[in-house]
Amino acid sequence: MTPAAPAPSDKAFVPFVSVADMMRLVHHVGLDEMLRRLAARIEDDFRRWQSFDKTPRVAAHSPVGVIELMPTSDGEAYGFKYVNGHPRNTRAGLQTVTAFGLLADVATGYPVLLSEMTLLTALRTAAMSAVAARHLAPAGARTMAMIGNGAQAEFQCRAMQAICGIDAVRLYDIDRAATEKCARNLADSGLSVTACDSPEEAIEGAQILTTCTADKRNATILTDNMVGAGVHVNAIGGDCPGKTELATAVLQRSSIFVEYPEQTRIEGEIQQLDPDHPVTELWQVIAGTAPGRRSASEITLFDSVGFAIEDFSALQVVRAAIAGTAFYQPLDLLADPDDPRDLYGMLRRAGGTPAA
Amino acid sequence: MTPAAPAPSDKAFVPFVSVADMMRLVHHVGLDEMLRRLAARIEDDFRRWQSFDKTPRVAAHSPVGVIELMPTSDGEAYGFKYVNGHPRNTRAGLQTVTAFGLLADVATGYPVLLSEMTLLTALRTAAMSAVAARHLAPAGARTMAMIGNGAQAEFQCRAMQAICGIDAVRLYDIDRAATEKCARNLADSGLSVTACDSPEEAIEGAQILTTCTADKRNATILTDNMVGAGVHVNAIGGDCPGKTELATAVLQRSSIFVEYPEQTRIEGEIQQLDPDHPVTELWQVIAGTAPGRRSASEITLFDSVGFAIEDFSALQVVRAAIAGTAFYQPLDLLADPDDPRDLYGMLRRAGGTPAA
Repeated sequence: MTPAAPAPSDKAFVPFVSVADMMRLVHHVGLDEMLRRLAARIEDDFRRWQSFDKTPRVAAHSPVGVIELMPTSDGEAYGFKYVNGHPRNTRAGLQTVTAFGLLADVATGYPVLLSEMTLLTALRTAAMSAVAARHLAPAGARTMAMIGNGAQAEFQCRAMQAICGIDAVRLYDIDRAATEKCARNLADSGLSVTACDSPEEAIEGAQILTTCTADKRNATILTDNMVGAGVHVNAIGGDCPGKTELATAVLQRSSIFVEYPEQTRIEGEIQQLDPDHPVTELWQVIAGTAPGRRSASEITLFDSVGFAIEDFSALQVVRAAIAGTAFYQPLDLLADPDDPRDLYGMLRRAGGTPAA
Repeated sequence: MTPAAPAPSDKAFVPFVSVADMMRLVHHVGLDEMLRRLAARIEDDFRRWQSFDKTPRVAAHSPVGVIELMPTSDGEAYGFKYVNGHPRNTRAGLQTVTAFGLLADVATGYPVLLSEMTLLTALRTAAMSAVAARHLAPAGARTMAMIGNGAQAEFQCRAMQAICGIDAVRLYDIDRAATEKCARNLADSGLSVTACDSPEEAIEGAQILTTCTADKRNATILTDNMVGAGVHVNAIGGDCPGKTELATAVLQRSSIFVEYPEQTRIEGEIQQLDPDHPVTELWQVIAGTAPGRRSASEITLFDSVGFAIEDFSALQVVRAAIAGTAFYQPLDLLADPDDPRDLYGMLRRAGGTPAA
């Protein structure tokens, strides 16, 4: 800025949480506590599901990936997430999924938070899975099979530990190096960690089966005979058209719970089923208007694809958590002239030309 | 960041152009040159109109305003703008419209530019008006009536001067203070400036009539008898449902040019007309596949509402202009672990806990 330029007013600044700030914030709050806050906020927001605008996500597809905008609003705050999905990115040393998000004040339209959401999405996805498991997993579940040991795996394990009382995880990935990475990262977590050589070995004795693989095709990570009575299946990786992880027969035997049916029928495991196959909306279970698990032998399935309200909840948690901390920087994102009609005058003055 | 945290890699950083940087950039490039570059890029992009994804904007309405996301892509780059419209904001000393935007690489989904767009939108809207006038205004047009002297007014005047050769502007606003502000700001612009007491006085001798008022209702800024043969009407302020500025009879006598008919029929002046009233898409005029002005006596009307491709063009101009300058800052927006699958390990290491 030139010496003549007046400093922007407070209204011009939007708090920005960088990746480094998000990592500092998580360490400051503590990972367990952060996951619990995310789970609590997601439950609160799911309980008032009907007060949200539920716009379908806006996707721009290309041959190599997709870029999506996921907006929602509860009438007081507006949030959206930018997220891409580019499976081949890892070949170039890039993340498959990166994201950032924004909260704004509906009354003025002014943004009030801009945040990285690559890390935050991993955290909220794990918290969401734990919320679903808390309502659906069999009583006394202690062991989880974690099939697919990529970027999301450790977060899933830690959330199930912090929120659902899981104390043992059994890891499997088609790439042994991924399993070893995951086991290393969880070595001091307090979880009992077992690296397995097959999906069959991973599910031995597990009450929760989490699938989170990256392959972009209709795969069969869980075959019909692998899923016994009474387990809870937490299916994360079937999350876009043409990408599923479960045998159709598993779906047929399960009570299926989803976030937003309109989206899940296109993107989730249930894209394999008839469009009128019965599913339960998870928010109704949380609100107490629909049953969750009904018997010890029932197979429950959370067909997770991720929904905008979860991102809204996560941004609200971050907004509350950074208040009074140094874990954000003020970003000069909004032009805010002293006289709102004098944008040109503000520009003039910034150049050192005094207004006449 | 704690001492133990590794510095983010280059891939983690997105160039960010703040409001202060945008003002410095405009002064560095020069306002006239900036407007000319915007006009040139808009023309280039309109000429290849059919290579763009044209998604309708995604709007979240509330009783006091609207928040919109405007995405588009040409298959190589993806852009979107966040923009709000809150007419009552000025009462609280806030801008009616604020905006920011983003460009991303379609091949990877990674953002490559984040920029303020409140100022940039004012610049691109003015450049767009000048592009339309260059193709539609009568030959030798030198005088413009500028009705509505709010935040956009000076930019309209300067763009018409820089790009279309206008040398005189006649200002009118229902609020005399706005006209005085506008006249003051243009005092050293090289334009001959006349402050007028009525819309009728403002249009005397003008070949281009620009309307840009803020009132959110169906107003009649230009009545039928005010619009004579041969003029070009540049209608900016009729830009959302229920907000128009022109008498229907003016529309009936005009050859009407629009950006994107699907959007303009909802938001523009032509919301007053039958849904099949003939209009010409401006990109066809620029591409040479449809005629612009056909006679000296024709009334041409550019029914401007603003379209996502114009924002895409503007972001591309900024992206090119900041290369090699100091008018941006690198923003740590993207998590970029050394191993894309090891997001958790990146978080661990940021807390000073070495990976095992």
